[in-house]
Amino acid sequence: MTALVLSQRGLLGDEVAKHNNNNDCWVIIHGKAYDVTEFLPEHPGGSKIILKYAGKDATEEFDPIHPPDTLDKYLDKRFHKGPVDMSTVETTAKEDDPEEAARQDRIARMPLLEQCYNLYDFEAVARQVMKRTAWGYYSSGADDEITMRENHTAFQKIWFRPRILVDVTEVDTSTTMLGTKCSIPFYVTATALGKLGHPEGETVLTKAAGKHDVIQMIPTLASCSFDEIVAAADGKQTQWFQLYVNKDRKITERIVKHAEQAGCKGLFITVDAPQLGRREKDMRAKFSDIGSDVQKSEDPDAIDRSQGAARAISSFIDPGLSWKDIPYFQNLTKMPIVLKGVQRVDDVIRAVDHGVTGVVLSNHGGRQLDTAPTGIELLAEVMAELRQRGIQDKIEVYIDGGVRRASDIVKACCLGAKGVGIGRPFLYAMSAYGEKGVSRAMQLLKDEFVMNMRLIGARTIDELTPDLVDTRGLNVHTVPIAPDTLGNHAYDPLVSPAFKAKL
Amino acid sequence: MTALVLSQRGLLGDEVAKHNNNNDCWVIIHGKAYDVTEFLPEHPGGSKIILKYAGKDATEEFDPIHPPDTLDKYLDKRFHKGPVDMSTVETTAKEDDPEEAARQDRIARMPLLEQCYNLYDFEAVARQVMKRTAWGYYSSGADDEITMRENHTAFQKIWFRPRILVDVTEVDTSTTMLGTKCSIPFYVTATALGKLGHPEGETVLTKAAGKHDVIQMIPTLASCSFDEIVAAADGKQTQWFQLYVNKDRKITERIVKHAEQAGCKGLFITVDAPQLGRREKDMRAKFSDIGSDVQKSEDPDAIDRSQGAARAISSFIDPGLSWKDIPYFQNLTKMPIVLKGVQRVDDVIRAVDHGVTGVVLSNHGGRQLDTAPTGIELLAEVMAELRQRGIQDKIEVYIDGGVRRASDIVKACCLGAKGVGIGRPFLYAMSAYGEKGVSRAMQLLKDEFVMNMRLIGARTIDELTPDLVDTRGLNVHTVPIAPDTLGNHAYDPLVSPAFKAKL
Amino acid sequence: MTALVLSQRGLLGDEVAKHNNNNDCWVIIHGKAYDVTEFLPEHPGGSKIILKYAGKDATEEFDPIHPPDTLDKYLDKRFHKGPVDMSTVETTAKEDDPEEAARQDRIARMPLLEQCYNLYDFEAVARQVMKRTAWGYYSSGADDEITMRENHTAFQKIWFRPRILVDVTEVDTSTTMLGTKCSIPFYVTATALGKLGHPEGETVLTKAAGKHDVIQMIPTLASCSFDEIVAAADGKQTQWFQLYVNKDRKITERIVKHAEQAGCKGLFITVDAPQLGRREKDMRAKFSDIGSDVQKSEDPDAIDRSQGAARAISSFIDPGLSWKDIPYFQNLTKMPIVLKGVQRVDDVIRAVDHGVTGVVLSNHGGRQLDTAPTGIELLAEVMAELRQRGIQDKIEVYIDGGVRRASDIVKACCLGAKGVGIGRPFLYAMSAYGEKGVSRAMQLLKDEFVMNMRLIGARTIDELTPDLVDTRGLNVHTVPIAPDTLGNHAYDPLVSPAFKAKL
Amino acid sequence: MTALVLSQRGLLGDEVAKHNNNNDCWVIIHGKAYDVTEFLPEHPGGSKIILKYAGKDATEEFDPIHPPDTLDKYLDKRFHKGPVDMSTVETTAKEDDPEEAARQDRIARMPLLEQCYNLYDFEAVARQVMKRTAWGYYSSGADDEITMRENHTAFQKIWFRPRILVDVTEVDTSTTMLGTKCSIPFYVTATALGKLGHPEGETVLTKAAGKHDVIQMIPTLASCSFDEIVAAADGKQTQWFQLYVNKDRKITERIVKHAEQAGCKGLFITVDAPQLGRREKDMRAKFSDIGSDVQKSEDPDAIDRSQGAARAISSFIDPGLSWKDIPYFQNLTKMPIVLKGVQRVDDVIRAVDHGVTGVVLSNHGGRQLDTAPTGIELLAEVMAELRQRGIQDKIEVYIDGGVRRASDIVKACCLGAKGVGIGRPFLYAMSAYGEKGVSRAMQLLKDEFVMNMRLIGARTIDELTPDLVDTRGLNVHTVPIAPDTLGNHAYDPLVSPAFKAKL
Repeated sequence: MTALVLSQRGLLGDEVAKHNNNNDCWVIIHGKAYDVTEFLPEHPGGSKIILKYAGKDATEEFDPIHPPDTLDKYLDKRFHKGPVDMSTVETTAKEDDPEEAARQDRIARMPLLEQCYNLYDFEAVARQVMKRTAWGYYSSGADDEITMRENHTAFQKIWFRPRILVDVTEVDTSTTMLGTKCSIPFYVTATALGKLGHPEGETVLTKAAGKHDVIQMIPTLASCSFDEIVAAADGKQTQWFQLYVNKDRKITERIVKHAEQAGCKGLFITVDAPQLGRREKDMRAKFSDIGSDVQKSEDPDAIDRSQGAARAISSFIDPGLSWKDIPYFQNLTKMPIVLKGVQRVDDVIRAVDHGVTGVVLSNHGGRQLDTAPTGIELLAEVMAELRQRGIQDKIEVYIDGGVRRASDIVKACCLGAKGVGIGRPFLYAMSAYGEKGVSRAMQLLKDEFVMNMRLIGARTIDELTPDLVDTRGLNVHTVPIAPDTLGNHAYDPLVSPAFKAKL
Repeated sequence: MTALVLSQRGLLGDEVAKHNNNNDCWVIIHGKAYDVTEFLPEHPGGSKIILKYAGKDATEEFDPIHPPDTLDKYLDKRFHKGPVDMSTVETTAKEDDPEEAARQDRIARMPLLEQCYNLYDFEAVARQVMKRTAWGYYSSGADDEITMRENHTAFQKIWFRPRILVDVTEVDTSTTMLGTKCSIPFYVTATALGKLGHPEGETVLTKAAGKHDVIQMIPTLASCSFDEIVAAADGKQTQWFQLYVNKDRKITERIVKHAEQAGCKGLFITVDAPQLGRREKDMRAKFSDIGSDVQKSEDPDAIDRSQGAARAISSFIDPGLSWKDIPYFQNLTKMPIVLKGVQRVDDVIRAVDHGVTGVVLSNHGGRQLDTAPTGIELLAEVMAELRQRGIQDKIEVYIDGGVRRASDIVKACCLGAKGVGIGRPFLYAMSAYGEKGVSRAMQLLKDEFVMNMRLIGARTIDELTPDLVDTRGLNVHTVPIAPDTLGNHAYDPLVSPAFKAKL
Repeated sequence: MTALVLSQRGLLGDEVAKHNNNNDCWVIIHGKAYDVTEFLPEHPGGSKIILKYAGKDATEEFDPIHPPDTLDKYLDKRFHKGPVDMSTVETTAKEDDPEEAARQDRIARMPLLEQCYNLYDFEAVARQVMKRTAWGYYSSGADDEITMRENHTAFQKIWFRPRILVDVTEVDTSTTMLGTKCSIPFYVTATALGKLGHPEGETVLTKAAGKHDVIQMIPTLASCSFDEIVAAADGKQTQWFQLYVNKDRKITERIVKHAEQAGCKGLFITVDAPQLGRREKDMRAKFSDIGSDVQKSEDPDAIDRSQGAARAISSFIDPGLSWKDIPYFQNLTKMPIVLKGVQRVDDVIRAVDHGVTGVVLSNHGGRQLDTAPTGIELLAEVMAELRQRGIQDKIEVYIDGGVRRASDIVKACCLGAKGVGIGRPFLYAMSAYGEKGVSRAMQLLKDEFVMNMRLIGARTIDELTPDLVDTRGLNVHTVPIAPDTLGNHAYDPLVSPAFKAKL
Repeated sequence: MTALVLSQRGLLGDEVAKHNNNNDCWVIIHGKAYDVTEFLPEHPGGSKIILKYAGKDATEEFDPIHPPDTLDKYLDKRFHKGPVDMSTVETTAKEDDPEEAARQDRIARMPLLEQCYNLYDFEAVARQVMKRTAWGYYSSGADDEITMRENHTAFQKIWFRPRILVDVTEVDTSTTMLGTKCSIPFYVTATALGKLGHPEGETVLTKAAGKHDVIQMIPTLASCSFDEIVAAADGKQTQWFQLYVNKDRKITERIVKHAEQAGCKGLFITVDAPQLGRREKDMRAKFSDIGSDVQKSEDPDAIDRSQGAARAISSFIDPGLSWKDIPYFQNLTKMPIVLKGVQRVDDVIRAVDHGVTGVVLSNHGGRQLDTAPTGIELLAEVMAELRQRGIQDKIEVYIDGGVRRASDIVKACCLGAKGVGIGRPFLYAMSAYGEKGVSRAMQLLKDEFVMNMRLIGARTIDELTPDLVDTRGLNVHTVPIAPDTLGNHAYDPLVSPAFKAKL
């Protein structure tokens, strides 16, 4: 260990700056220096991204990916080098980044929040104003993103059969999920890395949810710590906890008990992620970001671990989790247990047999296995089977994925869902407009929801019944044959009448 | 009340101009000043649009949205400030509006009427020459406009089975609707705010309809007054009346009786609009129009009421209307009663049970509930059920929505419709070319209709039978899976032979 | 009648030029002057197009539309003004027509004939090098051209079930149609106005067909006279005659007998054209062509007769033709009679009952009734019904429409067609490359045909059986729901790896 | 024979250069001169391409198309003119070829290998960096390339039914094909002319396959000689041999025995190519390449033999091959025999009856008969029939065509395939990045495969069972009706909120 020159306020910047390579690598995080040389090869996100900041302040890059207490918890004390006198750290004048300049220009010209009339609008704005890497992490799906996109379009395969001449003066959208009352049958589902979109991370969602009496599911992989998210709640609002089961069950045990004590009203165990999916949009965004340091690698088969944010944060998840573990969780907590990511009818039956409280029919937002079925399509199959067996009341069935309109939620409720999870749209609203954005997104959904109920002729959630929807096309996955290139080229399209030429 | 300086010809312009703000707001309409300060918060179209004209002449903006007698009827007399000497009113030199200049240029270069060969052509021209806000109101549909567009494409799912070697020298297209003879089985359906498209509003449609022996349905929400529209008729032509039921049944009673006395031959009660749908194209057009006054609002959840023309005019409609009210209307009038906007087979059966004369299978031009079924698709289901029960003659079934070709009408007739309503296409023809436009649109439909009957081998409307159409694909709603982005990018399309390069 | 100044070689140009208006209109055709004043209102193509040439030489415009003997046959002798001294006729220096100049430039840069590898290629070239009006006439279809395009794509709904390990060293594509041997089961079907595409008109097709032992069907509405087309044959080749039945049966009788005497081996009576269809592409092309003379018409309802070439030439066709007329034709001629344009299964049965030799399942190239069924789809239904009744050998079934590949013909043969008519592709080949073009088009089809038979495992036409094709999707007419505009806009497509930026 | 001036090191360049025409044509190949005058008309690739090099060095053009020993084997010795002093051969300064310059520029800017995340990426890069003619040969398919593209998209018609809560800590992808163990159920299938993509040709694939324990099928039409490819193997790896049966069975006998002696573990007899298909992309690329010498041909019907590389190399293939020949092969070799290119269910049954070891359900990469069925679709039908008859274990069923994702392979295994052949993707990886590219492509597939198994809940190949896939849409070939041109033009699409204008 080198002798250190310590100023009164801590290490000097140029001292840290010497440790700037593969064999001797320090970084500064929140004003403290850490020696991460030995940790480099183990970094889940790859060593390259750290080396980019070797000898420098890495806080900005570090923050959205890591819970605030990461280094203090996981890095051996002997590598904690102590505080740095930040006034002595050379702030690398940001290189001229034309892409970033263009982004800042777009931010300056953002549409007003009032111009967002639906959830797509937040997404369209966020796409323009978010950093490319953050956008890449939020917006990406598995492989060809077929399932991700089908999640959305599947709802358009369901058509309404609206009832007329019903007195719909009063409409009540409130419902109960896992025993808790809430204002409307959707909830904020768990999504990772909230600080990629907003400096205050998931607490932004918490506040908007509280305001609208909407339930929030707290993610294991939040940027904020669990406690911060709980603290942001208003004391009356309901929160659930989403769990990635750790290979180390002790850790799992600790966080589940902690969640229960903090008042969480449901435990959602993710069962569709024994391994995280490949999300190439994320990988490509990440690659560009660290591309400047990259040399042609010697061994092309050494698939680099720098595969986007997703891979970086998920290496602890246990691929060995199985049905045998369910009783363990049932003993561990009194929270109602819901399996999140069920994808087959017979696995729902099995869940009933195991006595869990609920299932979320979900493909993880299309981020795991491409051409996995959509929640809404599976819902129709599942409810038919449950009703056939007379066990439709033995389990609460939720879905998530692809919701963009309140009519999507109405359709799910008609088919038998207790509630619907919404993830990305709120992230986009948050990333573009902060808490006000999320709040407006929720209000738009509520307005649409009331209108839809009126127009479909239903006054309460109970009145949303299967006969109000036409699902005949739901299980049809149409793939047109390839375009008729030569025929289309030769064909001369019809035209509208021509305006006279300009003078 | 301020002391007023009255010139001989009325108030002076600069006097009115002082009342130009939130707390003291006058406007001039048709040469008269009104104090609308107290009315501002109640204006169904929002206060912003009024404040834009505070202290100024608002006639041009006012006219298309409001029946001519609105202020005199609804604004307390004490706010009527009397006539204004219009020569003293500063005519605000229209700001340089490049968009409006471009529109005027397009108008100058409009195609000749003779170049319009079909109903799409009027739409294509109108889109270019109408004001954006007017176009936004006419052309918009609910949410993602899926139903609106399906209305049109649904007809393309029906294929003919034409009969050959029938002597079709003579073809008779005349038919009877609600007991009245007319030249052809389509009618002008009710649409709101005709003056957005043409200064003479709905009377333009009346005159063209009279000329062609086509029935017109008079809308509740016309820009012209009911009496003006009746007066524009030629004395022999048939008119029906479309009714939005008012929360205040007294008003409803009055206008229904008035319509009957004026000679209307049918009462069409709209049943698909307990709340008006969200039409974002309209909202967006409106927003831009008043955008210059807009500041970032403090409360983002306060969804502004300035949601386009549609919302502004519909707040009186009763969401409590139900089957129980039907006998009330049957007692109120001797006009045949038709329910407009029926959307389920069992509601048609219920209509038969209630003894109404007819139903219009309609989704309100796709302006109410998105992914509601199309009239033409529902028609096939309805007629099958009615025939099954042997009650197909107990009710007259109409449809509307999406008609662009006479073949669409022929298909509906083959399936059992008594008639087909057409709305937007005539509005577009009117907006672009006035009465001559509407008349040509009707003539084109007639010519197409005769041709279609010849080519299908039918000589009279009665000969339009179900066996002449193939509806096997009608209830299939195809949603292709998402485009294969990577595959398509890698694929190298076939090409036609290359011309030699230019020298 | 005016006194005429006759030069030794005929009328002087400036004398003719005086008769240049509505009330006194002469035109020069092939060096002779005609007074067409009285004929103007009766001209099937409208008066405008004649007035454009009033007092001038109209030969170039006249030729493709009219058989050479038209005026001498149909215009009263007293209006024949005699020969004109063409050296005295002012040849109007063609106005600078940038469109025509661009076309001439494209002609100069045409791809070599050897670069055309398939029938689309001729179409792609013809589209660029033909005059717009000629292209408009050939390429247009009815209304939205849905049926016209479906004619082509319908074949892509049929998939092969190829047989392997068949010795296909020798493949024989010859067959027999209406009792005549020919080299391959396709024929040149009747199409009108050949001189629009090539100065030698239909005789170009005759020569190529003769060379390839392909049967040609001679059209009633040819640009060349019937006798010219027969004379162009090589004496051994087979020709059929296509008949539009004239309201004046005497004329019909005369031309049928003439065709029989000239050796035609089949009479194809067109039964799908009691009225000609609306072809808007043709109408639009025509309109532009005569647009310079057009003023805003006074009466917008007076749908002008200038509706493209199609309408102009068809006014004589009898809409009263019916099944009752069939025996008349059977008495009139010994030629086998085939009904061209049958479009329903039961009409095929009726044709069998009437004892005709064959039917052509056809929708007139998609030029008559839009959303009429395609020949190939109908073929599958028809043959199933005929086989069901055991009468599949009582009638020869042909189809036409949309053929672009030999595989299309193979598919039709597998389903039971005796032969397949091809029209437009040969017109395009002729228009672009003349006789050599048509000959190459036929050779390409032959080459493809042999290859297809080898690859499908069939050695003779008889071995083309229904089990070689999969038609499960044939009767499905898919109309996807409207594009998801907002969703697609918000979605960020996957991309291929980026090349480095250019320096 | 001319008297030759021989330098010490061989013929002088200008001596050879004299023989530069149709009647006297020499070419230099690998430093030796050959008189090919008499051979010109027989050249399978047409004479034009040779004449382009008359009197010159043709090595570069010759190499990828011809196995190295071609001339020595097939050209009579008297035409071998002996070695040339290459220092005396004028190296024609390559003409300025802007297309080639652009390609070289693209090569200089190629993405890093690490940026390729999936098999499409190699294809996208190869398309930019390959020579147009090489790309044309590899990438082209038959006719409209419908089958070629369906091969790929067919996999997207199959959706997963993933099983959750299975302990997938350990996943084993190894399997057995034709009795040989290998690491994963895909193999490198036979493709021709490897040197078009890489100077070392097929040996590049051999090395990568060896490294990954993947089986390689050696093609008859390799650029490298069979022995070179065997020599490139590592001694332990498995190779199969693909056979085009020669009209001269002696040749076939010789090469089959040679392959067996060299250790090949399977004989794949191609049965779908009695004649090679038309691949117009290849023909067009070839045409351009030799276009400069081409004059308008006198006889347009003389379809030139220069129809791309495919035709040039296949003239020896026997179209007479039939089921009768199977016992001959069974006597000829002890290698397991597999029929490659089976396309009907009943032909698989017939294969079982003939006692062959396996079949490959294949349409030759979509290069033979367009609208032939895809392997994956046929697989579902075949396995159902085999199971129905209880003979699913009597034959090994393989498929190839269109594989781009490991999920495609997983789906095929679920449906019952023993293995899946991959061709073009490895050629593209090789052409763009050489052996490292192929190796990375294989590694990516392996990574995806493991991930897919985890996410679907399967630990071994045996656990890939039919219930894990939803194939309801597999046999649906959707061809949407033609686009609604006029309707789409008139429709005004919804838009996202507008950003403020740039200043």
